[in-house]
Amino acid sequence: MDAAQDRWNNLIHPKGSLGRVEDICVQMAGIYETEKFDIPKKAIIAFGADHGVYEEGVAPNSQEITKIQFPNFAKGLCGVGALSRYAGADMVAVDVGINCDEPLEGVIDRKIRKGTSNMAKGPAMTREEAVKSIEIGIEIAEECIVKDYRIIGIGEMGIANTTPSTAIISVMTGKLPEEITGSGSGLSRDKIKHKAQVIGKSIELNNPNPTDGIEVLEKIGGFEIGAMTGVIMGCAANRIPVVIDGYISYAAALIAYKINPGTRDYLIASHKSDEPGSDAALELLKLNPILNMNMRLGEGSGAALAFNVIDASVFAYNNMATFEEVGMKI
Amino acid sequence: MDAAQDRWNNLIHPKGSLGRVEDICVQMAGIYETEKFDIPKKAIIAFGADHGVYEEGVAPNSQEITKIQFPNFAKGLCGVGALSRYAGADMVAVDVGINCDEPLEGVIDRKIRKGTSNMAKGPAMTREEAVKSIEIGIEIAEECIVKDYRIIGIGEMGIANTTPSTAIISVMTGKLPEEITGSGSGLSRDKIKHKAQVIGKSIELNNPNPTDGIEVLEKIGGFEIGAMTGVIMGCAANRIPVVIDGYISYAAALIAYKINPGTRDYLIASHKSDEPGSDAALELLKLNPILNMNMRLGEGSGAALAFNVIDASVFAYNNMATFEEVGMKI
Repeated sequence: MDAAQDRWNNLIHPKGSLGRVEDICVQMAGIYETEKFDIPKKAIIAFGADHGVYEEGVAPNSQEITKIQFPNFAKGLCGVGALSRYAGADMVAVDVGINCDEPLEGVIDRKIRKGTSNMAKGPAMTREEAVKSIEIGIEIAEECIVKDYRIIGIGEMGIANTTPSTAIISVMTGKLPEEITGSGSGLSRDKIKHKAQVIGKSIELNNPNPTDGIEVLEKIGGFEIGAMTGVIMGCAANRIPVVIDGYISYAAALIAYKINPGTRDYLIASHKSDEPGSDAALELLKLNPILNMNMRLGEGSGAALAFNVIDASVFAYNNMATFEEVGMKI
Repeated sequence: MDAAQDRWNNLIHPKGSLGRVEDICVQMAGIYETEKFDIPKKAIIAFGADHGVYEEGVAPNSQEITKIQFPNFAKGLCGVGALSRYAGADMVAVDVGINCDEPLEGVIDRKIRKGTSNMAKGPAMTREEAVKSIEIGIEIAEECIVKDYRIIGIGEMGIANTTPSTAIISVMTGKLPEEITGSGSGLSRDKIKHKAQVIGKSIELNNPNPTDGIEVLEKIGGFEIGAMTGVIMGCAANRIPVVIDGYISYAAALIAYKINPGTRDYLIASHKSDEPGSDAALELLKLNPILNMNMRLGEGSGAALAFNVIDASVFAYNNMATFEEVGMKI
């Protein structure tokens, strides 16, 4: 990292004046253990899963949207699909718990179960399933790393998944559900109040230990959230930077952080989600997003958008002249 | 704009969930007067000029850096040079007042004078020079528009130019110089205090009328600031969006806004500068930057970086599937 900062200090600009354009490259140098690297091969890994808590009426859309929309990831037709195509990132879409029996076109089948159990009535999953969801994430990450991907973005699809994410963020940050529950993909004000009550009830009933990331995932999480946690852990273990997306990925990052705080150093925060719990989650993770776009789509769309900024930063790092090259004194 | 929002509402995502990815395209549709447009041909127009107030000791670098660094814009070697190359934007570098007699390689010569007068001792320029600087900006913008550029970023180079910019922002926002004066390209704490005193003295001595943009430019501005104002006005008049850069361009945008408040609708704010007066300036302009990168380089580097995000947004707008195309019900 010192060597990368030294390179920046020799490029023709006032020291530090490119701010996070510099920081991103210094962080990547630390992760890669070399100050010499080029624009990395990119993938977005996205997981689809359904949620038992959907039956409490916490989402404005029908649950079957998950299975209908998820194949559009790999086809490049949805938000993250188009944005990852633009950024030159490949899309890896993995079903870890979508509520359907049929195979989904272009989607890798690693289904754990057809959706979690309703956390308002008991644990969302067993501890074994929680561990399994993380392991799937690790495995998928490592399959990508073997194929020479050198930066990974994470994304997801799962109708109702801001509900478990808010529950996780509430437990981890100590914020009350009524302080941080938002509209997800478009809930009305009355329904947001109901959603916060469901989240509060689920936390009270399951009473997860906030210091145990796996227990939080088991009791109030989701399969796609656990798999995203696994990608973070698998990438960190293999020294690959992870670009996190919005709200759901903050929850996954918090679980990874509780399991191993060192994972945080491998994260680049792409954008600040419009969900009200975002500030508290990002503060705990000490992450400062690159983009400020009022996005609340999820999917990995923010990560795909941020790839453009990261690649541009690496290009500047490698292509600006040094003071010596242009004969300027520092 | 309604037609563009209708298109977004038909693309497969929850309404409005792509936030400012949508807003940028809707704004562009309004500016272009059509909802059908593709990724636009891009240029960064940057102006170089020196400042008489430099002699008050308000900048950490030697004034001759302006003439040494400015040719590196067109060569693609400096921050904005590399970042505009990455974004596929052409670079137009124009000398409007650099303190040198020799021609600068790759730079268009529209020099008004070899730097402004010292605003701490009198007006920075005459009213005729202020008008001329704006006219040069308009002309250069129109030369680009004739060559089919359909989005323009603005940038600048001028040792000491955060000093007049802070003076302009102070007069326009009513904030005191000591509240908003920052380190520019790396001033020490003691020198920042001195810089604020110089700004305060210059405002008191020249007493510009804050409602007269041209008078503010004349008394406490700079030639590159006026020329950037002119680009904004020339682009607005020709219905071309302008991506503003950091702190110096906020000052130019404020002058344009005072001359014609309608110019604001043509602006896209690229990034939030690390200079402490940024919040006040952006609030008055009602602009919310795309990027949050702690950059304070200027040059147009933030505008060049934001082009990537704008282009990605336009790509998503044109390449996401509609609900009808994939057979989904809204």
